[in-house]
Amino acid sequence: MPHANFTETVQAAFQERFGAGFSLAEAVREQHGRDESRETPVLPDAVLFAQSEQDVIDALQMAAEYRLPVVPWAAGSSIEGQLIPVQGGLSLDVSGLNQVLEVLPGSFQATVQAGVTYAELNRQLRREGLFFPVDPGAEASLGGMASTNASGTAAVRYGTTRDNVLALRAVLPGGEVVNLGSKARKTAAGYDLRGLFIGAEGTLGVMTELTVRLYPLPAHVAVLRASFDSIEQGAACAALLMGAALQPERLELIDAGEVAAVNNYLGRDYAVAPTLWMEFAAATEEALSGTLALARELCAESGGGNLTEAHTEAERAALWEARHKAYYAITAQHPGHAFLTTDICVPLERLPDMVAYTASLCRAASVEGSLVGHVGDGNFHMTFHADPDDAARWQTIHGIYDQMIARALEYGGTCTGEHGVGLHKKGHLARQHGDSLELMRRVKAAFDPLGIMNPGKIF
Amino acid sequence: MPHANFTETVQAAFQERFGAGFSLAEAVREQHGRDESRETPVLPDAVLFAQSEQDVIDALQMAAEYRLPVVPWAAGSSIEGQLIPVQGGLSLDVSGLNQVLEVLPGSFQATVQAGVTYAELNRQLRREGLFFPVDPGAEASLGGMASTNASGTAAVRYGTTRDNVLALRAVLPGGEVVNLGSKARKTAAGYDLRGLFIGAEGTLGVMTELTVRLYPLPAHVAVLRASFDSIEQGAACAALLMGAALQPERLELIDAGEVAAVNNYLGRDYAVAPTLWMEFAAATEEALSGTLALARELCAESGGGNLTEAHTEAERAALWEARHKAYYAITAQHPGHAFLTTDICVPLERLPDMVAYTASLCRAASVEGSLVGHVGDGNFHMTFHADPDDAARWQTIHGIYDQMIARALEYGGTCTGEHGVGLHKKGHLARQHGDSLELMRRVKAAFDPLGIMNPGKIF
Repeated sequence: MPHANFTETVQAAFQERFGAGFSLAEAVREQHGRDESRETPVLPDAVLFAQSEQDVIDALQMAAEYRLPVVPWAAGSSIEGQLIPVQGGLSLDVSGLNQVLEVLPGSFQATVQAGVTYAELNRQLRREGLFFPVDPGAEASLGGMASTNASGTAAVRYGTTRDNVLALRAVLPGGEVVNLGSKARKTAAGYDLRGLFIGAEGTLGVMTELTVRLYPLPAHVAVLRASFDSIEQGAACAALLMGAALQPERLELIDAGEVAAVNNYLGRDYAVAPTLWMEFAAATEEALSGTLALARELCAESGGGNLTEAHTEAERAALWEARHKAYYAITAQHPGHAFLTTDICVPLERLPDMVAYTASLCRAASVEGSLVGHVGDGNFHMTFHADPDDAARWQTIHGIYDQMIARALEYGGTCTGEHGVGLHKKGHLARQHGDSLELMRRVKAAFDPLGIMNPGKIF
Repeated sequence: MPHANFTETVQAAFQERFGAGFSLAEAVREQHGRDESRETPVLPDAVLFAQSEQDVIDALQMAAEYRLPVVPWAAGSSIEGQLIPVQGGLSLDVSGLNQVLEVLPGSFQATVQAGVTYAELNRQLRREGLFFPVDPGAEASLGGMASTNASGTAAVRYGTTRDNVLALRAVLPGGEVVNLGSKARKTAAGYDLRGLFIGAEGTLGVMTELTVRLYPLPAHVAVLRASFDSIEQGAACAALLMGAALQPERLELIDAGEVAAVNNYLGRDYAVAPTLWMEFAAATEEALSGTLALARELCAESGGGNLTEAHTEAERAALWEARHKAYYAITAQHPGHAFLTTDICVPLERLPDMVAYTASLCRAASVEGSLVGHVGDGNFHMTFHADPDDAARWQTIHGIYDQMIARALEYGGTCTGEHGVGLHKKGHLARQHGDSLELMRRVKAAFDPLGIMNPGKIF
């Protein structure tokens, strides 16, 4: 059932303006009716492929005129239902805005169109000896990463997407173009609408360009991997490394079950134990050597065993294998099952408690979950799985998830460290930010008085 | 002339509620009628000394009821007129909210009341081996620093105040209390109203508590100081250090005139040349030694001479002397003069151009200005001075300032890197963010529909 305002006249108007860029094809609409979440797909009435900022401007002008919902779309990798057009209308695909517009190596910044993926940007930057550090894992677009304030394994050292977008250019519903933030490294000029737009999940407008921060590729890098008797011990080791100001580039923990799954999946014989990865970098060999000496010492002190080190790029990639394959290994182990990944983040010293509490909930309900943790940030993901049709089981899983969030909020933490709210966490957001939800709604209305931008998301 | 709504009935109501905390004394009002800017003082009708969050709630409830302007006040150290109650009404002094409420060393965070100064917080943190890194120089309060998104010499390594406030508690006009952000290190839960409140210069509400990020005091620290033939050469050296990923803790440049002034002021014989300070830190002696070796090499390569090093805390403090005394030395050299400090920030590789352009403007107009630069951030301050009554001279100075800002905006930079807009830069903000000013006004109205929070500031 199409959106009430998606009349034949409206269709004709879009067709006239966009020609082949405006698609009503079922297959195209299906592709834009879902993301990587478990949410029920909803097809948009049409998909509009923007090839330029002017296309975005015209699309948002027409959408406002016809009061038609618009959901921005780029790589399709969101995982909380952000991309699902629950009220129909247009899916505005900006993946065609895929140009790196300017790289200023001496200013450590690049300006890109919103559809560029971070992997593609990094491929183009390699020859400059620079990189964009936010690494959420999926083949995400920079516009999408900004929209959900994505982060991932390198956030412990470089922060989130919000910390790494200096400026952005966006089109508001109605077609007005605004430039937010500044290309300088810091600014105190007026309200931070840049930061507000980042993490707004497409509910305020559509980003077309981003100016992002770049960093010199570190000259010397090493990775340590160690295993522990318990997951809490691994988390405690991570806390010790953070306290020693060693500034790890990455600090990742997985549980024994994930290692076992990787062993099955790839035919390896990694020690089946909670495993911690520690990546360090420095500008000189000597500086790195000093850092590693202290890291080894702290690791041994906190009970880390099976310590393995890697220095060359190839060795490092090999050493990371079990971490990188963990999610695929778990999903492969349970064919036919559906998966749900949580995204709690708590103040660092609460992490061991939080992990232990989660384990006790799982034990009590006989639910199997596997843990991957960005443990330098206090952020960890539990992946739960069950037969998609086993409603009772899913109810139990959601019950555990609810209790986890309740505890995280008691600890001053958040229901989502890096995945965003989308459809899935609207109830949880109300628990977390009930006192400012009305304020968020008023801010939304200031940007989008007609309520056409990604309606039904966040709140 | 009191604000029209500041009637005798209203006065009596405040007196009844706040007793001695509500002051009409001329001397108290005078103290709250100015800040450290050159703007003309305006006395508030009354000063209200809050001793608790409840005082702030009641004050904002009554202010809304009586439609009375409110200007939040803490340390009085703003420098763009932010604190001047241009429409009269209440100056709400929160310096009595001066408690460090909680330090969580294992989570690298502290929760403080908004009137706590960063110096006081750091005194209390020393025994924990932790520190709060934002260091704007003045004896500023954390609430005030958040309100202007202050930064200073350590921003090159640790970012601005916005980057270091995880969560805050604020009272909105009308008395409603909201908790913004999360005590976790990262969050993707809804709109970033925390970041919006930071840098809003008291126009959205009054902060009462902040949860700030802490860092381990680095175990090994060293400072290098070098002098250069030209200021551009010093800036180029700074860029080289940034490109080598040496992660300096501070990177500060001053011009030859400032050194000469310090020599006069303190009877020293520092080499009268552009001078660069480079501070580095590491977790181990070996790591620091590796960093310093490369830093020395890059410094020599870019023409740095008179290289001096300091390792102990006392030596380091002594080495920094000329930088720390620069502003006082300049002001002492021109008794009776008034001073104006600019705050431009540009993409890093534009800094040498920007500095050269500024020097050419000064030469052409025969105006003397002295430069202090946070050169790792692309942010520098020119201090101009003249007889306060020499209107023609001040017009020339403001003409130079205008041209500097025009050039900075062409370069994608900002009219204010860390001081904020206040009264002084409203015109400049309109040039910089003309396309989103209306959006800022709508956001303001979402928080403060009556327009009573620090009216007349920013836009």
